Amino acid sequence: MKILLTGFEPFDNSPVNPSEKIVYMLANESIPGVEISTAVLPVDLKLGPIALLNAVKVSEPEAVICLGQASRRAVISIERVAVNLLDFRIPDNAGKQVEDQPIEPNGPAAYFTTLPVRKIYSVLKENGVPSELSLSAGTYLCNQVMFTLLHYLKEQDLKIPAGFIHLPALPEQAAQMKGSVPSMSLEKMIQGIRLAIQVIAQE
Amino acid sequence: MKILLTGFEPFDNSPVNPSEKIVYMLANESIPGVEISTAVLPVDLKLGPIALLNAVKVSEPEAVICLGQASRRAVISIERVAVNLLDFRIPDNAGKQVEDQPIEPNGPAAYFTTLPVRKIYSVLKENGVPSELSLSAGTYLCNQVMFTLLHYLKEQDLKIPAGFIHLPALPEQAAQMKGSVPSMSLEKMIQGIRLAIQVIAQE
Amino acid sequence: MKILLTGFEPFDNSPVNPSEKIVYMLANESIPGVEISTAVLPVDLKLGPIALLNAVKVSEPEAVICLGQASRRAVISIERVAVNLLDFRIPDNAGKQVEDQPIEPNGPAAYFTTLPVRKIYSVLKENGVPSELSLSAGTYLCNQVMFTLLHYLKEQDLKIPAGFIHLPALPEQAAQMKGSVPSMSLEKMIQGIRLAIQVIAQE
Amino acid sequence: MKILLTGFEPFDNSPVNPSEKIVYMLANESIPGVEISTAVLPVDLKLGPIALLNAVKVSEPEAVICLGQASRRAVISIERVAVNLLDFRIPDNAGKQVEDQPIEPNGPAAYFTTLPVRKIYSVLKENGVPSELSLSAGTYLCNQVMFTLLHYLKEQDLKIPAGFIHLPALPEQAAQMKGSVPSMSLEKMIQGIRLAIQVIAQE
Repeated sequence: MKILLTGFEPFDNSPVNPSEKIVYMLANESIPGVEISTAVLPVDLKLGPIALLNAVKVSEPEAVICLGQASRRAVISIERVAVNLLDFRIPDNAGKQVEDQPIEPNGPAAYFTTLPVRKIYSVLKENGVPSELSLSAGTYLCNQVMFTLLHYLKEQDLKIPAGFIHLPALPEQAAQMKGSVPSMSLEKMIQGIRLAIQVIAQE
Repeated sequence: MKILLTGFEPFDNSPVNPSEKIVYMLANESIPGVEISTAVLPVDLKLGPIALLNAVKVSEPEAVICLGQASRRAVISIERVAVNLLDFRIPDNAGKQVEDQPIEPNGPAAYFTTLPVRKIYSVLKENGVPSELSLSAGTYLCNQVMFTLLHYLKEQDLKIPAGFIHLPALPEQAAQMKGSVPSMSLEKMIQGIRLAIQVIAQE
Repeated sequence: MKILLTGFEPFDNSPVNPSEKIVYMLANESIPGVEISTAVLPVDLKLGPIALLNAVKVSEPEAVICLGQASRRAVISIERVAVNLLDFRIPDNAGKQVEDQPIEPNGPAAYFTTLPVRKIYSVLKENGVPSELSLSAGTYLCNQVMFTLLHYLKEQDLKIPAGFIHLPALPEQAAQMKGSVPSMSLEKMIQGIRLAIQVIAQE
Repeated sequence: MKILLTGFEPFDNSPVNPSEKIVYMLANESIPGVEISTAVLPVDLKLGPIALLNAVKVSEPEAVICLGQASRRAVISIERVAVNLLDFRIPDNAGKQVEDQPIEPNGPAAYFTTLPVRKIYSVLKENGVPSELSLSAGTYLCNQVMFTLLHYLKEQDLKIPAGFIHLPALPEQAAQMKGSVPSMSLEKMIQGIRLAIQVIAQE
């Protein structure tokens, strides 16, 4: 099975982004029955979605998992819903900030993920990877990319599993943030994403 | 330098305790200039403090670090204060639960740690290990052991650095708990405690 | 302007529900330019939505605000999105619990509120009523009722402002719950909902 | 019974402080069997403790309750312990900030409150006032004033009940803060402090 795995470049003054690191690590790993292509997307209102759709067109995947960072979350957050809304709390890497704008003015209010999220959640739990099913991917780039992906697949009538998974901060990031910030090791995140890929490949 | 490092047995229905694991791992590690002796204490109102003081008497350490688990904390918690109070939210492993009792009826209200906690905190932070200085070790076994240790050293006029460090849940523990529970990898915890030992050895 | 205001009966072993109390209080209050009709809905997967749609049909409102309780939230939560998903963490008052079911099998993934939520949020803030814009109304009765309402209005082509507002626990409820639970006085909640009604009436 | 009730002036850029308001309100209230004297203390490392001790000397109370604000706490926090430590996260109102200093260089590590805190806690709970027993009053002015008070009473051998109670933000404060900040109405806080005074007067 051909799977496209995407991450994001660092943002919000951090020198790293766990989603980018995972993408690089899993690109070089062999998972039986899976062929992984990858892309690292810019944290940019305009260019992020373009880079994602370009990767989808080029790699012609049979499933897509997008990854991103959610700094204050304590566990791997498997997103259920992407909403048609842009409302940035901080500017993107190009300095652009928007409030209460639609992603697709003629699009629907939301899309549900088409990943087998309940199954992924239970497999992660069984394997000792802290995770949760999440009802909101926010209104920043992560949600935008998830919505854009699901909208594109719908428009193209491409019936492949696709969705988004949020990652906590890495320990080295959490150590630099104010207050008591939860984190997760890169190894544990990779284990979680590898398990998610295997679930998708087996379904 | 001879350092005594203690942990606790599992409690509260968990099959593991990160403090116990760290103690076993660091017992087999060689840190230049440091000789580590270890003890794993029972989570038992009566036997816990006895086991600790016994380990102190047997190993004659030049510094003592006690470790324990604080399941909902997100980072390594370096304790500043132990209070003369027992107030158990859950029973100990012997089924004993106490409310608003002193640890030492004739003892002072509290002891400050004698570990160089500000220095440990900044070294952990520099090395990417999420941590915090904490003002309360609770009123369960962890605080009891910390208080008992500092009281004993004071009574014996033993001027050695001693204190307590709380650890988050391990990922495999957090994955089984309800809700979104923060965790830390065993490797990151070991790195943090090894750094703490090095700071103490260098002071 | 005719406004329909709904609340819910008590649930989850609590003898009261702030949404029900607010409905009773505001039913007896005169707000210039506003005629309020009210309904208290059963916390019941089957009967809750029926009672709501019945109230809409009977009262023929020009705007609808549904209220409900979200016990661990600290502020008035103005919901932006209702999703087509039932996933009950606890049973309803009839003992029924469902997992991962759609509300409307042929309905869209979600609806956005049609209330002027940004304006309501800023008016509440200016008037000292703690509030937030929320991206998830959960997957229990509150979200179900919000989704059912917006779906019905869409199907009927009724272009009236409609949405959902979540309320914290009342102080007397929070005092009985485990841990440190945030709350809000009934007076402050009523002030907040009254302001929301005035915003809607003025738009 | 003569009770001294103290609060603090506003700080941290807020125009109000609930502890000050409560002091003014209860100063004008008649509670059977209780004679209340009051003081509002400056949020000032040097002047705060002086003002408190001066009020104690002038009013010759038979009990002392000090109040202060803890902005992110959700419930009334009845403090059990004051520690001999100054470690300011923000400067005081005179612009002074200190790190890791003792309050009394020759004082003990800590004092326990001498208020009947378990009884106060259960009476508040029974009366629907959200509250908790707290193990840390922080290391700012509130803890400083509590420690200074208990140290003075100990030195003077004055065996009167004395302690500290922390209050959440007022709704109008929480509405201006970033994020979802818990609050409590002034009326509910006054009810809680009045109940605490009655418990002390009855003991």
